[in-house]
Amino acid sequence: MGTPYERAAAGVECAAEFGQVRQRSVHLAEPLSPEDCCAQSMPDASPVKWHLAHTTWFFETFILEPREADFRPFHPAFRVLFNSYYNGVGDKHPRPQRGLLTRPALADVLAYRADVDRRMARLLAQHPADPELAALVELGLQHEQQHQELLLTDVKHLLAQSPLFPAYLDAPLAASAPVAAPAWVDFDGGLAEIGHRGPGFAFDNELPRHRQYVAPFALASRLVTNGDYLEFVEAGGYRDPSLWLAEGWDKVARGEISHPLYWVQRDEVASGRGAWQEFTLHGLQALDPARPVTHVSLYEADAYARWRGARLPTEAEWEFAARDVAIACGDLHPRAAGSAGLAQMFGECWQWTSSSYAPYPGFAAAAGALGEYNGKFMINQYVLRGSSCATPHGHTRATYRNFFPAGARWQFTGIRLAR
Amino acid sequence: MGTPYERAAAGVECAAEFGQVRQRSVHLAEPLSPEDCCAQSMPDASPVKWHLAHTTWFFETFILEPREADFRPFHPAFRVLFNSYYNGVGDKHPRPQRGLLTRPALADVLAYRADVDRRMARLLAQHPADPELAALVELGLQHEQQHQELLLTDVKHLLAQSPLFPAYLDAPLAASAPVAAPAWVDFDGGLAEIGHRGPGFAFDNELPRHRQYVAPFALASRLVTNGDYLEFVEAGGYRDPSLWLAEGWDKVARGEISHPLYWVQRDEVASGRGAWQEFTLHGLQALDPARPVTHVSLYEADAYARWRGARLPTEAEWEFAARDVAIACGDLHPRAAGSAGLAQMFGECWQWTSSSYAPYPGFAAAAGALGEYNGKFMINQYVLRGSSCATPHGHTRATYRNFFPAGARWQFTGIRLAR
Amino acid sequence: MGTPYERAAAGVECAAEFGQVRQRSVHLAEPLSPEDCCAQSMPDASPVKWHLAHTTWFFETFILEPREADFRPFHPAFRVLFNSYYNGVGDKHPRPQRGLLTRPALADVLAYRADVDRRMARLLAQHPADPELAALVELGLQHEQQHQELLLTDVKHLLAQSPLFPAYLDAPLAASAPVAAPAWVDFDGGLAEIGHRGPGFAFDNELPRHRQYVAPFALASRLVTNGDYLEFVEAGGYRDPSLWLAEGWDKVARGEISHPLYWVQRDEVASGRGAWQEFTLHGLQALDPARPVTHVSLYEADAYARWRGARLPTEAEWEFAARDVAIACGDLHPRAAGSAGLAQMFGECWQWTSSSYAPYPGFAAAAGALGEYNGKFMINQYVLRGSSCATPHGHTRATYRNFFPAGARWQFTGIRLAR
Amino acid sequence: MGTPYERAAAGVECAAEFGQVRQRSVHLAEPLSPEDCCAQSMPDASPVKWHLAHTTWFFETFILEPREADFRPFHPAFRVLFNSYYNGVGDKHPRPQRGLLTRPALADVLAYRADVDRRMARLLAQHPADPELAALVELGLQHEQQHQELLLTDVKHLLAQSPLFPAYLDAPLAASAPVAAPAWVDFDGGLAEIGHRGPGFAFDNELPRHRQYVAPFALASRLVTNGDYLEFVEAGGYRDPSLWLAEGWDKVARGEISHPLYWVQRDEVASGRGAWQEFTLHGLQALDPARPVTHVSLYEADAYARWRGARLPTEAEWEFAARDVAIACGDLHPRAAGSAGLAQMFGECWQWTSSSYAPYPGFAAAAGALGEYNGKFMINQYVLRGSSCATPHGHTRATYRNFFPAGARWQFTGIRLAR
Repeated sequence: MGTPYERAAAGVECAAEFGQVRQRSVHLAEPLSPEDCCAQSMPDASPVKWHLAHTTWFFETFILEPREADFRPFHPAFRVLFNSYYNGVGDKHPRPQRGLLTRPALADVLAYRADVDRRMARLLAQHPADPELAALVELGLQHEQQHQELLLTDVKHLLAQSPLFPAYLDAPLAASAPVAAPAWVDFDGGLAEIGHRGPGFAFDNELPRHRQYVAPFALASRLVTNGDYLEFVEAGGYRDPSLWLAEGWDKVARGEISHPLYWVQRDEVASGRGAWQEFTLHGLQALDPARPVTHVSLYEADAYARWRGARLPTEAEWEFAARDVAIACGDLHPRAAGSAGLAQMFGECWQWTSSSYAPYPGFAAAAGALGEYNGKFMINQYVLRGSSCATPHGHTRATYRNFFPAGARWQFTGIRLAR
Repeated sequence: MGTPYERAAAGVECAAEFGQVRQRSVHLAEPLSPEDCCAQSMPDASPVKWHLAHTTWFFETFILEPREADFRPFHPAFRVLFNSYYNGVGDKHPRPQRGLLTRPALADVLAYRADVDRRMARLLAQHPADPELAALVELGLQHEQQHQELLLTDVKHLLAQSPLFPAYLDAPLAASAPVAAPAWVDFDGGLAEIGHRGPGFAFDNELPRHRQYVAPFALASRLVTNGDYLEFVEAGGYRDPSLWLAEGWDKVARGEISHPLYWVQRDEVASGRGAWQEFTLHGLQALDPARPVTHVSLYEADAYARWRGARLPTEAEWEFAARDVAIACGDLHPRAAGSAGLAQMFGECWQWTSSSYAPYPGFAAAAGALGEYNGKFMINQYVLRGSSCATPHGHTRATYRNFFPAGARWQFTGIRLAR
Repeated sequence: MGTPYERAAAGVECAAEFGQVRQRSVHLAEPLSPEDCCAQSMPDASPVKWHLAHTTWFFETFILEPREADFRPFHPAFRVLFNSYYNGVGDKHPRPQRGLLTRPALADVLAYRADVDRRMARLLAQHPADPELAALVELGLQHEQQHQELLLTDVKHLLAQSPLFPAYLDAPLAASAPVAAPAWVDFDGGLAEIGHRGPGFAFDNELPRHRQYVAPFALASRLVTNGDYLEFVEAGGYRDPSLWLAEGWDKVARGEISHPLYWVQRDEVASGRGAWQEFTLHGLQALDPARPVTHVSLYEADAYARWRGARLPTEAEWEFAARDVAIACGDLHPRAAGSAGLAQMFGECWQWTSSSYAPYPGFAAAAGALGEYNGKFMINQYVLRGSSCATPHGHTRATYRNFFPAGARWQFTGIRLAR
Repeated sequence: MGTPYERAAAGVECAAEFGQVRQRSVHLAEPLSPEDCCAQSMPDASPVKWHLAHTTWFFETFILEPREADFRPFHPAFRVLFNSYYNGVGDKHPRPQRGLLTRPALADVLAYRADVDRRMARLLAQHPADPELAALVELGLQHEQQHQELLLTDVKHLLAQSPLFPAYLDAPLAASAPVAAPAWVDFDGGLAEIGHRGPGFAFDNELPRHRQYVAPFALASRLVTNGDYLEFVEAGGYRDPSLWLAEGWDKVARGEISHPLYWVQRDEVASGRGAWQEFTLHGLQALDPARPVTHVSLYEADAYARWRGARLPTEAEWEFAARDVAIACGDLHPRAAGSAGLAQMFGECWQWTSSSYAPYPGFAAAAGALGEYNGKFMINQYVLRGSSCATPHGHTRATYRNFFPAGARWQFTGIRLAR
């Protein structure tokens, strides 16, 4: 594990990264009122305040509790209140009732964060070269970054429930220049190595690296845009059952979905339907035809692809294609494609694949409560690849496997075609 | 309508009462944080902030809009956001989603209140002797007083969802002296006049006054206490279907009810079940056997009465007995009986009757949206009589008809036996 | 209880009546296939076969088991399978799963009936003058008559689920002559005696007879017809919330009700909506404007009355008016009014009242399992008076109290206006 | 397509096979009463009568209607009544209401079958060498064989709802000899060809044959037995969340699953729990420890495998291993393993794999309504391989892909371990 000097330097770096990531969570809550931070718009979403507390609970429970000599919990009730899904840790507050936790107040949760941060800093200073501690801190920070993205998508969903359509960010979005039609980028495929190869951090679900045969394929050079998708809507895509998976058509037939989640069609004049708008973190904006379509379910992505005579990529194809693509970071709303070649792989929208979320051959979950992190969710979910405009800097890899149920729409999900 | 002098005096009095009632709503919210005021614990309950806004909306919509010369709404979206159930006014924000209205913030709602109060004061000063205006103001204030009670019971329900059991009021409850067994107070009955007789305010559902034959009956001299009810619980009252109405037993059999809503049985020691406590607006308190049992459904009240070989009163019996009883006001939690004779008719707990909520013979709802106030709810609800510890001063009458579904438990409901 | 001769004669009469009532149940099933007799169209309805078995279970459980010297059950499992709701008897087969009881077969249930009938006949012959036995037999027969009506309404509901609209009876309905507009029949009211007065049979819920004050009122001389009700439909009655109780409007707004249950509007020509038809036990028939509207909920009856500027009667008013009206029997579908005066009180449609189903003053349920017959259902149900075209001969009284939830529509329910 | 002689011979063979398969469906219904054939025990299951009619509808709709010169439907309503899920054909009778179709009677459905069989025979005689017709007939027969298996599992589910536990077959099951512990059978894997290779029939979901890399693996030499699984139950397998996928644990925690679907634990003596029994098509039988465990969900299969330190196979592994295994046919209940080597691959229980049901690379659904056969269900389902004791003779292939949701338990599903 390196020389003492290297280890001390690693400890300092770890502490610095800890401070930066932790500070960013608080920063993300700054545009919001205590009320905004408390409400829960649906069982799948969590309050901002809960995200701030739960990520802190992670450090307190998995690092401070077993390692602090004189450990005492910040508040004994928080162990239950802010446990998400770790059966190994004990009881949990019921998920659909997180929005009823008006106490502790936002200020109390910020005090909780400050206390745990102080104790974590002390612990890191005491053990600058403990690799097991460093690994747990790294996991805690990656976990917090996942919640930073969820915090943004959850608060977007909450604000979208209001007829006032309040903006998270004041600045309006600029209109984009038109984009060209997508090209097909071909790949030879072959017997490929799939999954993470060290030395950096990866989640257990990216391991082990293994061989997989990938037949020749092509990916679209850019994401599907609002303009592309509007053609599908206007051509009656939501009225033709032959385009849809049976489960998706059931939703369409029940009237649950008829356009992307945040598209809004408001009356412009008394007689007649208005132009499409899109609710964004910048508030309600005219639908920009050049930006990627986002907040679609796998059902919609699949139906759109079928309508275009194409299909969705598998996750192995996507990873094969992305291996040498430079990581890009996003800006809280997907941007129009600019570059040539294989564009928008990272930093705009998560890209639905046709691959169900399953363990890689040889996958083994960690022992204890942390083993619940990923493995137990490998059922009835589908893999999304890439990253989104809400993914934090430093949280992106070509091997990263995000996953959601096929009907989920409140993440920044988009469509890349394959054939 | 009196001399000009009398009318001017009435105008001043109306303005003064307006200010007092309106101020009390704000006062009730003072112990609460913005988060406490925003959350909604169940579809039947509303956020405190919503109560503050909706009562204001009532004055703005039914008084200012038709009477202000240059009427402009405080905010155009509020007409829909804060409409409760008046189809005649137009669209409504969906009731189960009131807790997602993090905007407008509490401060904005308080500004809304101040603006409407200012404009109402101006209108009242301009029309000091307009009897129709005075009647509408009176209705608006009575409406606001109803919401003051709901505000308290709704926030109690919200706070009860937290494992922290936070108190609305800091001061603990004092233990009560023991109370004697109840006596039976006999009434001759006969052909009685039931319903409101002027001149004071009454809701339309208390009218018209009409004749009803009441057979001889007796009422218990006091409410059923926690101690009385605990005997029922410990005797297996919740395990014997022969005591229950079929719908009530269904709830018991599904495990939905097994004790009054806010009773809590916490472990005192590791081995064995603890003593009963009760969640109150003063926080969690030891169950006081002398205080009235409260937060019970009609199903529980009926089963308890059957177990005691008694029954619940009809609303006519209750009104007949209450005609000459002095009004008393409450103190946010029911108190033990003190006086002799027919005690605790007012100011402690609403008393379930066996009477369904139905129109009096000759009842006619008002025209227009205000006609939706009462009549359309006269189905599948049961009448409660008296008033509770949360009923505002000045909002109590012997002819008052409160009503809730048989399963409702979050109001201050209690039990008075009859035979 | 009379002389020995009278008692012997009463015993013979009891046995004869037993045979007639029991035989009629079997007769009612004759037009049906074993499959028709097995299916259950909704949890509120029961299969024909279940009715045949449960009424037999009643005699076996409440008469043979305690009185037969060498009692052995016909089949030990039937005690649970065919218990409806008597907690005092023990476990029950879940109500919504009655339609899955393909075994015992219809033939086996008919054998069960024959066996119990034979043993009942023997018991009645052994105890010709036992008044307690006679009373239980009478209760069992009245119970069976109630199930005969349910059998007909349940099988009508089942047949209505089929797109083939099969008829229970082959003969088509004849068109009726037009009927005149209804007149108002006035009653003075006063302090009236309400409830059953001996010596004949009555259910416990018709007792005790008691005094009630009835203000002067008027009843419509006939039931509301299909033609009357069609005016309400065509005038937009189902689109105006001001006509409806709030719960009823919720159903309308959700699209659950938009016309009487069995009205069908079929395309006559490719372009345009067809004429109204009505599904009857005689199959699909053209809607006859002269016949009474039937299969409406209390919500619809109430809204219709409000639209006509009238109201529904109370049950005391209805009984007051019906005291001297001759009983008439029906013919499996309501017929147009023929006579003058107060017509159609019996034998056409049950008439919704505005009275909730509540115990009469002094009501006491019987001890034991039979005490569950009526009392435990006295909550959230409304009283219907009269009788219907499906009520058996000999099962009608002016004091009879039928009861159903406000939303029930599959009985032969109709509307009589009051004011 | 061969010489004229070969073609004529093929036509005769086709007609003979048609008659045999069609006759077997009728034969399967023979032990059942008309009531047994009509009832529907849950929305996922269909009545026997519906299976008999729907398979007939398939031939009438997809073969007779486009090919018969003077086509007239047997009954115009059947087109809707017996359409399962083909949007391309038009409306469908709602699936959960199939059990309410008491009409047409079973006898009428048998007449429908006879009529379509007669017309099919005539058509086949007219076109003895039409390869497109022969392919459609083959598809229709394969479709009918699928429904023969469903008919058996659906009727088993129905009979299991009855407290009488009626048997489909009279003969009791014989006890099996004990079986040895399973061995591991190793496979090298490699770049394998997966999917059907002609010339025989295959469903579109088995195509196209394609390359897939399979890492070295091992399969258990036999299926998991009741005895094996009982160890898991008795060791608390249903009480340990760490063994379960999160969705599966939710079901366990809600009390929905605690043992295989048809295991029954009846009281043998008044005090204490009885021995395990198993409901089978032969009625209730003592649980045979040597027979394969069956009627388990994927959740249970996965938890069991984890508890044994093993895993479920992928579908590619299973197919790789099964390539040279001889097909065996079953006997309506799984039998104990007899042979050495890789036993029980076919004819006992469908074997859950960890593979989600997804299109093979290059999969293309057929055009028109028949394209709805498989493709639209490729979401949130998991593949099962092999065949079961209820799979018809001639309906088994190593490349066959059966699929059900992870929670489905009413099929003959079992467990084969991999590592």
